[in-house]
Order: sequence, then C-alpha cells, then structure tokens
Amino acid sequence: MKHGGDLLSYQHKFEGQIIDFSSNINPLGYPSGLKQVIIDNFDKLIEYPDINYRSLKKIVAAYLGCDDDNVIVGNGAVDIIDNISGGFDRIVVPVPCFGEYIDRPKLHNKQVIMLPMLEDFIIDVIKIEQTLISGDLLILGNPNNPTGKRIDKEVLIALHSLVIERCAFLLIDEAFFEFCKFDYDSIELFRHSEAVCIIRAATKFFALPGIRLGYGFTSKTMTIKYNKKAIPWNINTFADTAAANILRDNEFISRSKEYIRKQRSFMMTELKKIKEIHSYDTHCNFILIKLLKGSEEDIFEFLLSKGIMIRKASSFEMLDTSYIRIAIKSENENMKLIGCLEEYFLKEF
Amino acid sequence: MKHGGDLLSYQHKFEGQIIDFSSNINPLGYPSGLKQVIIDNFDKLIEYPDINYRSLKKIVAAYLGCDDDNVIVGNGAVDIIDNISGGFDRIVVPVPCFGEYIDRPKLHNKQVIMLPMLEDFIIDVIKIEQTLISGDLLILGNPNNPTGKRIDKEVLIALHSLVIERCAFLLIDEAFFEFCKFDYDSIELFRHSEAVCIIRAATKFFALPGIRLGYGFTSKTMTIKYNKKAIPWNINTFADTAAANILRDNEFISRSKEYIRKQRSFMMTELKKIKEIHSYDTHCNFILIKLLKGSEEDIFEFLLSKGIMIRKASSFEMLDTSYIRIAIKSENENMKLIGCLEEYFLKEF
Repeated sequence: MKHGGDLLSYQHKFEGQIIDFSSNINPLGYPSGLKQVIIDNFDKLIEYPDINYRSLKKIVAAYLGCDDDNVIVGNGAVDIIDNISGGFDRIVVPVPCFGEYIDRPKLHNKQVIMLPMLEDFIIDVIKIEQTLISGDLLILGNPNNPTGKRIDKEVLIALHSLVIERCAFLLIDEAFFEFCKFDYDSIELFRHSEAVCIIRAATKFFALPGIRLGYGFTSKTMTIKYNKKAIPWNINTFADTAAANILRDNEFISRSKEYIRKQRSFMMTELKKIKEIHSYDTHCNFILIKLLKGSEEDIFEFLLSKGIMIRKASSFEMLDTSYIRIAIKSENENMKLIGCLEEYFLKEF
Repeated sequence: MKHGGDLLSYQHKFEGQIIDFSSNINPLGYPSGLKQVIIDNFDKLIEYPDINYRSLKKIVAAYLGCDDDNVIVGNGAVDIIDNISGGFDRIVVPVPCFGEYIDRPKLHNKQVIMLPMLEDFIIDVIKIEQTLISGDLLILGNPNNPTGKRIDKEVLIALHSLVIERCAFLLIDEAFFEFCKFDYDSIELFRHSEAVCIIRAATKFFALPGIRLGYGFTSKTMTIKYNKKAIPWNINTFADTAAANILRDNEFISRSKEYIRKQRSFMMTELKKIKEIHSYDTHCNFILIKLLKGSEEDIFEFLLSKGIMIRKASSFEMLDTSYIRIAIKSENENMKLIGCLEEYFLKEF
C-alpha cells in the first residue's frame, strides 16, 4: 500500500464496514453546511470554472491571510507538489516523508537526494547545509508525514535563510497545519520571501479528500510561473464552490482543533501504556508507531480481521516493516483500536 | 480570449444574463438524473477516490466498447493531452487546432511542428508524410476544433498506418465525438493498435465542463505508462460517481444527438443566407465563420452589447481576425443570434 485509504483492496477480507485508520482525515467529517451549498450551486457544472479562479483565490487569500495574487490552487496538494517540483533539476528532501515528494520529481526525471532524519525523526540540518546548492528545491513536510512532527520555528527560519543564501527554493507542505497547536504561521514568517511556497489543502482538515482542493501561498513571481504550468481548469466547480463555505466555518475549525487535541492526548496516553510499541510524539492527527515486537504485516492482518485498517509504514523511505501509522479518529473508534492493539499483543507475545 | 466560456471577464459590459456562444456545450444541459445521484453519494467525499478508479474504468470501458485496462482517465481531456504529449520529444499537429495541443507540449519544452491545413481546412496528408519521423506524436482533433470537421475514415486509417510505419504515436482527440453523425468508431478501427490513444470526455456532450471528467482508450502498454504519469487521485469523487449515471443515459444521448442535428441544420441554412460571411460546413455543435466584412473585434463587441458572447478565433494558430466561432445552442438562442447577426450586417455595411 503506497497510500492510505485503499479500503477497496481489502474489503473482501472483512465482512462489514472497515474503520479506516490508514488515511488521516478529520474524524468530524466535512463542515455541515457544505452539502446545501453544493446543491444550491449544482447548475454551475454546465459552465467552465473561471479559468483564473478569481473568486476562489480571494477566499483562500482571506483564509491564509495573504494577497489574492500570492495564492495558487491545485487538484489536491499533490498537483501543486507536481507543478512546483517539476521546475527544479535537483530535489533535496529529508526522509521519511510523504512519498510524492520523491515520486513526482523522479517521474519528471529529476534527481532526488534523500537525507535521513536523525534520531526521533529530527531534520538533519547540518546534512542539508552540506548538500543544498544553487537551483535546488528543498521540500519539507510541516508537520511531516508520517512522523507527525512540526518543525521548530527557529529551525524553519534558519533553513529558509540557508535556502536564500544558496539561491535555492523551499517548498513547505503544510497539509496538516490546522491539526497542530498554533505556534507560528509560516505564511506570516515568509510573507515577503521570493524563495518559498507553502501548501495547504482542504483534504485532511476539512475531510474532503474526494473534492480535490489544494491551495498554497507563494511569491507573485512564482504564482505567474505556476499558473502557466498548471493545466487549465485544474479545480472542479464543486471544489471551487466549496471553498467559500468551508474556509469561513470558524465554528467547525475551532471545534475540530479542540476535538483532535483531546483525542490525541487520549490516544498518546493509552498507546504509551502498551509496552510492545513505541509511539512517537505527534503534533498531528496521526501517530507513527515503532513495533518493538512483530511486524507491520502481522498486525495489519490481525487488525483487518477486527475491521480496522491501519497504514503499513515500510512504503515510506527509510522505514522498515517495524513501523505502522494510525490516524486519530472518533472517540469510540480510537477506543476500539486501543482495545484491539492490547488484544493483539496479549495474544501474540 | 484563449478559451471560450470566460463570461466573467465580459459580464461588466452587459447588464443581464449573457448567452454564451463561445463554449461548445450541449444546450440540453446534463442528464437529468445526475443531481440526485450526486446528492445520494455525497458522503463519499470524505474518502479518497479509489486510486485505481476501478469502478469508473469499468463503466467507461462499457461505454466505449473496450476492455477496462484499455481505459485511462483524466482531470478533463486536457489532463490526458498533457500526460500523453509530455512523453514525446516532437509533436506534429495540423493547424488550426485546439490550442492546448500546442501549449501543453511547449510548456514541457517539447518541439511542436505545426502543419497548416489545406483549403476548406482539410488535413494536409502529404505534408504529414514529409514531416513525421520515428518517436513523434501526431495529434489530430476528430472532429477538429475550431473547424468542426471530422476526418474521413479512409484518411484516418491511412494516417494511422503512416504512424505505425514511422514508429510514431497517434493521439486522436474526440471530445466532440457524440455530436457527429455516426460514420465510424475509431476505437473499433484501432482496437489492437499499440500506437494510438483516443480521448473522449464528459465535458461537451454531457454538458459538464465543471465536473472535470476526461477519459480515453489506449493500448494496455500505454495505460500502464499513463497511470504512472498521472497524479494520484486526479479524478474527483463527483466525477467518479457521475459516470455511472451519465454514460448509461441512452435516452439523453439519443435526444441530444437528434436535437443537435436539427439545430445544426437550421443554423447552417440561416447562416448561409448572410452574404457577408462564409460558414464552414460542420460535423459538430459549433461553426467556424469567416467574416467577409469587418473583424472579430467589431462583431464581438456588437453581439456583447446584445447579450451574446461568441469566440474570437484569431487566438487559434493560422486564423486571423476575420474568423469567429459560434456554438449551436437552444432553438431560441440560435434564432436570437441569427437575428443579431443580420442586424449587425444590415447596420454596419
């Protein structure tokens, strides 16, 4: 499994509804007003979306706190990763990371240099310093998938300075930004930078992986390049329409943050009681787990037999079969997973 | 205006609803059952679409009359054009044609060789013979936009043979296929070819430019390459869901074909009465017009003042400011356009 969420490939192994802990989606679902907005605007489908997405960019700009012409939009975050990374010859990326930081540039015949993280999945800044040269693209997940770690403000500022010094470019993927405790806003930090692009998306926090809405902040120079590169009408009308509803739903946003905060705390406390695993501290709505006994395949199959799908993590660069990744879901689902994990380790070892 | 349908840029020039003759969408709108299907399946949004689009490909295969693993899918036809053309170093294309056959390859730093069509916009087969070499991609619009001409079966077969002989590849864009009188089916003709990709789409005939659903037929070898190249989850859940409804709506399909046939006949008869223009015979739901007096800009502004938007055609390679393109729309709208054209030529000349 290269990505989470591939329920269809495993459904035959369990009778009934599988609980999907493999994809990291807000357990509260999408904002409740969305359905009516889509129904009310259904007939917009018979027209092309605005090829310049003027209204969408205005709404995203207000949400991100930047100018309209600093906003880029994509068919999901991966479209933005693809369009930006395709413009550089050499990509530098700390691993483990989201697989598409590696796969998309490779598809465009670019060189990808992977720098293993240090213990506890800390970015190896010295290694980046030794590696980064003029014209490179440095890609950072912030927070990073699958490790769940947000980059310290000082470290990010230092890396940005290094990027400027080396005449390189920095792509920061913040698809999970809203799940984190607010510490700093990278858009605020790098508002005037010519060398940064910051990706966010509706996919995870607004629980809309199906709608395909990614967006980002970058310099006005880069938005012009990006708009040429992106295919015309890359955002569908529903995604275009949805933004005005979801990005302004402050009640949903604060309720989701609070819910995840509580459940994350509950999950970490419970997981730390299981001595056969090491659960890495996370800023996110997902948790990377090191299995001290057994392998991803065993536990995957056991949990599947219980109607739970987790993410085997060996498909991430640098991780072996002793890692799994789980999402933080609803209270009941989380309790069910904890119960099943306890049962697994009691039974198997 | 590089593409039709950009109403937003011109709305300030007319108070009221502008009738859009610039984009070539089925005037009957989308199949009537679609809205309920989307509402019923709304919650699929919170899951990722199937990354392999297994169900979608099965439905498309049944519609196209081919195997599931001959089907490719894209975020609109332009996504397929982009993914396929990006794999070739040199693109050969008769002009005038849909601008993206030229723009997308150029963006990927490919060489694009444009071969002007002969009188009455007939493809210059001899010129193609003289030009095409091993490894080239030949792109043909069938029917072609903006000329409205479908390629004769014998010519297409001959061009396909030439492509095979030269070890090249043939991309046939049939986004307007269903609007034409049925004469032959290129998928049937080239079912066993290793050197062809045929694009169709929901955009035009099913009046769904906003849903972003393109699909095509190609060899099993090429589908594997294509699936690697395409970004993951390039089709949104609504488009994925819609296919089962729209592609099986035979009543809509036959009613639309009949409607367009009648209105095309009416429009051609009326347009041929206007002696200040030459209207090219069309197999499509749009008509290319040569202005024998005046220019695209004049007539565009006049019609806009009447609440009608047409397509200025000088943005198409090889056409100058004496061409416009109009869509075939509903009976009332078509009559209004004819009336306004008559008024324009009476008044201006």
